[in-house]
Amino acid sequence: MTNPHDYAHENARRFQEELKELLRIPSVSTLPQHKGDVRRAADWLVADMQRIGLERAEAIATAGHPIVYGEWMGAGESAPTVLAYCHYDVQPAEIADGWETDPFEPVERDGKIYARGAVDSKSHVMAQLKAAESLLAVSPKPNVNIKLLFEGEEETSSANLAAFVASSRERLKADVCVICDGSMADREQPALPYALRGIVAMEVEVFGPRQDLHSGHYGGTVHNPVQALAEIITRLHHPNGSVAAPGFYDDVLPLDAEERAALEKALPWIETEWQAVAAAPQPWGESAYNLHERIGARPTLEINGITGGFAAEGFKTVLPARALAKISCRLVPNQKPERIFELVRNYIRQITPPTVRSEIRLHSVGDPVMTDRNSPAVQAAANAYEKAWGKRPFFTREGGSVPISLDLQRELGVPLVFMAFGYKGCGAHGPNEHVYLDMWHKGIDTILYFYDDISRGNLR
Amino acid sequence: MTNPHDYAHENARRFQEELKELLRIPSVSTLPQHKGDVRRAADWLVADMQRIGLERAEAIATAGHPIVYGEWMGAGESAPTVLAYCHYDVQPAEIADGWETDPFEPVERDGKIYARGAVDSKSHVMAQLKAAESLLAVSPKPNVNIKLLFEGEEETSSANLAAFVASSRERLKADVCVICDGSMADREQPALPYALRGIVAMEVEVFGPRQDLHSGHYGGTVHNPVQALAEIITRLHHPNGSVAAPGFYDDVLPLDAEERAALEKALPWIETEWQAVAAAPQPWGESAYNLHERIGARPTLEINGITGGFAAEGFKTVLPARALAKISCRLVPNQKPERIFELVRNYIRQITPPTVRSEIRLHSVGDPVMTDRNSPAVQAAANAYEKAWGKRPFFTREGGSVPISLDLQRELGVPLVFMAFGYKGCGAHGPNEHVYLDMWHKGIDTILYFYDDISRGNLR
Repeated sequence: MTNPHDYAHENARRFQEELKELLRIPSVSTLPQHKGDVRRAADWLVADMQRIGLERAEAIATAGHPIVYGEWMGAGESAPTVLAYCHYDVQPAEIADGWETDPFEPVERDGKIYARGAVDSKSHVMAQLKAAESLLAVSPKPNVNIKLLFEGEEETSSANLAAFVASSRERLKADVCVICDGSMADREQPALPYALRGIVAMEVEVFGPRQDLHSGHYGGTVHNPVQALAEIITRLHHPNGSVAAPGFYDDVLPLDAEERAALEKALPWIETEWQAVAAAPQPWGESAYNLHERIGARPTLEINGITGGFAAEGFKTVLPARALAKISCRLVPNQKPERIFELVRNYIRQITPPTVRSEIRLHSVGDPVMTDRNSPAVQAAANAYEKAWGKRPFFTREGGSVPISLDLQRELGVPLVFMAFGYKGCGAHGPNEHVYLDMWHKGIDTILYFYDDISRGNLR
Repeated sequence: MTNPHDYAHENARRFQEELKELLRIPSVSTLPQHKGDVRRAADWLVADMQRIGLERAEAIATAGHPIVYGEWMGAGESAPTVLAYCHYDVQPAEIADGWETDPFEPVERDGKIYARGAVDSKSHVMAQLKAAESLLAVSPKPNVNIKLLFEGEEETSSANLAAFVASSRERLKADVCVICDGSMADREQPALPYALRGIVAMEVEVFGPRQDLHSGHYGGTVHNPVQALAEIITRLHHPNGSVAAPGFYDDVLPLDAEERAALEKALPWIETEWQAVAAAPQPWGESAYNLHERIGARPTLEINGITGGFAAEGFKTVLPARALAKISCRLVPNQKPERIFELVRNYIRQITPPTVRSEIRLHSVGDPVMTDRNSPAVQAAANAYEKAWGKRPFFTREGGSVPISLDLQRELGVPLVFMAFGYKGCGAHGPNEHVYLDMWHKGIDTILYFYDDISRGNLR
């Protein structure tokens, strides 16, 4: 009998090189010019699935980017089945954003690998894949069936995965679904999220004069669209940090005292992390809620980008014809993205001054999700973390979004478990994103301990 | 005896081709990569000056772009001397800004030439140059001396011309200085400006978190720099359209009833033009002042550009580390740009929330200027316009800026005359800038009539 943990440790170096191979493929799902790269990453994953012995491995075409699926059902129908979900697509990245090295040429430095997708979320994809490899490479074979589902559209709000899940209930049928993405409390303290925020992303464009004007010829008589957009943005929040769109909080579930007390445990870590990573002059936001609650349990409205007029080097005394902002709201359980879009859109229409015209366009939506932190599946995950990291995980609410979670929960009727081996200081969505190799290898161990626990029938 | 007007009309087609040659040179003074092109435009002008018989024609090197100078002093010391100023540098332009054709490949269509610089201000440069050519090509020679001064840094606020003027009083000595730039009331109604606004241009940058963050991981706890900048921009104006920086209006000279009545004459034209060109949903600004006064007699604060986060195609759920706005104020006589910069900078510092940090950087300054609309020089110009256009010009206050005007007035101690043959609908600083050829040729005639009037000794 060989131990899958030993196999994983003996092959650590190769696993890392394979992770780097995947990181080299710029699978940026939000930019049309990377469509071929996303496809290439999918094909790479399918090839590796086939190599390690997964069956039915394929890149499933969608209207957008492919879904990668593979399974090992060798434990038989009486054994439990785990469905693991991760995403292999990444956010855009350019050297000009502040990267010290090419975001798509992984660099190993000080026990970390730097590359776009290193922490969000190719290291999670590869942790699942390499855990499966380790389990299947040794004998006896495990008493658990494995289904791996890797998405290529998570960063574009999973436009096509929901339909696939709804039409693939039999294929995806499982006893537990592990969603593998996100961050721990810090580099040594595991955290087990039981809630993720949803998202609704939109664009707001303000139109003023028919075309760009000379600011000397018309300045003082035309409501500058940048200024009008700034006025609109200003009115999206109350001075106390809450979102001003009427009805925005109507569907938010209140936090009870027991949950607030449990969340409090992770707070020192979150505050330390905030000081280390965000490091703004001062925290900001709803003062009635602590940082953990603001990040995980409260909805937000964020300006992700703005453009208008001439803002490059030099100066152009233009009075611009238009200005554009990209806005997204993070939503908490029980909020509906479509409803929030309507509320925000109607509010922006209402506060748009009559001197300009505004257009509000929906970009994408993703539902928030919550799972029972006392379920046997979540407790099995907590045990696995404790074995791999030597510490009992905190229970946390995550600020990020995995849009497909609610669909998986609803369509498959299985308990969800959120596993993450990243750390918020790893620069997800920002420059110099990286993954700590020691955390990654402990992640693989955690998955193996979880399979071991599940295989003993503890789920039922 | 040949008539210079006849010469100009007979050579109209060649003059147009020469104007196009100059328009083909992308002399964008605000962008470092066009430094060589600005130099090329200067050399082109010097060569033409030499060809038509100007003396001492040269491109004078400065710390920035060259000054082009040439003169004809053949009328002798007893004859009056006219110094004409124009600028040959242009604003940036790219197809992507909304141009229908290449901004640096002039296209003739419907009696207009489309190109960057067509109206602002290479048609003015070429009107002066071709008027001088027409005057010198015929006999007898005129009883007026001509000095042409063409600047290459007007769009960057004349960083080096002021020093040149101060150190070249003897060379530039004249009885009247014609500043040739700007617009008429409409295509048929000439206007004679007697005041130009000054300018102060600055950048405001807001810094929040140490680096771009994942909006899910930190949204709700960090004051988004785009939002903070929007809040700052919103507070730069009062709801009534006036600028909110304390002291901003302290030095503005009040308009007396007589001047307001005179300005009123041009108002219908300005309102028609506003509807045709600006064409925003509604006018905006200080309601106590009419459109003409808002444009020419009141100072303004304009957002020329803004950038922050990810605003390209697609979506990136980033919480940006910084946001930048380009801001310029147009100033009216008696306001000091340096003082206004201090007031605005101090105010922005004061309203910057403690959750972010702001930096305010001065870009450039230009003084406002006013001339006596009853001077013999201005009256000579009014007569010249009447002869060329068949209509007495309105007296107007211009909204644009010619930063060097005050230096010329102060250093040379001469009366100023502002001549312009453009029209605000011609897209200065915007896409599809153009010049009407019929207006341009009437402009050359106006200059010739002005020389004729001056040569009769009417100035003294």
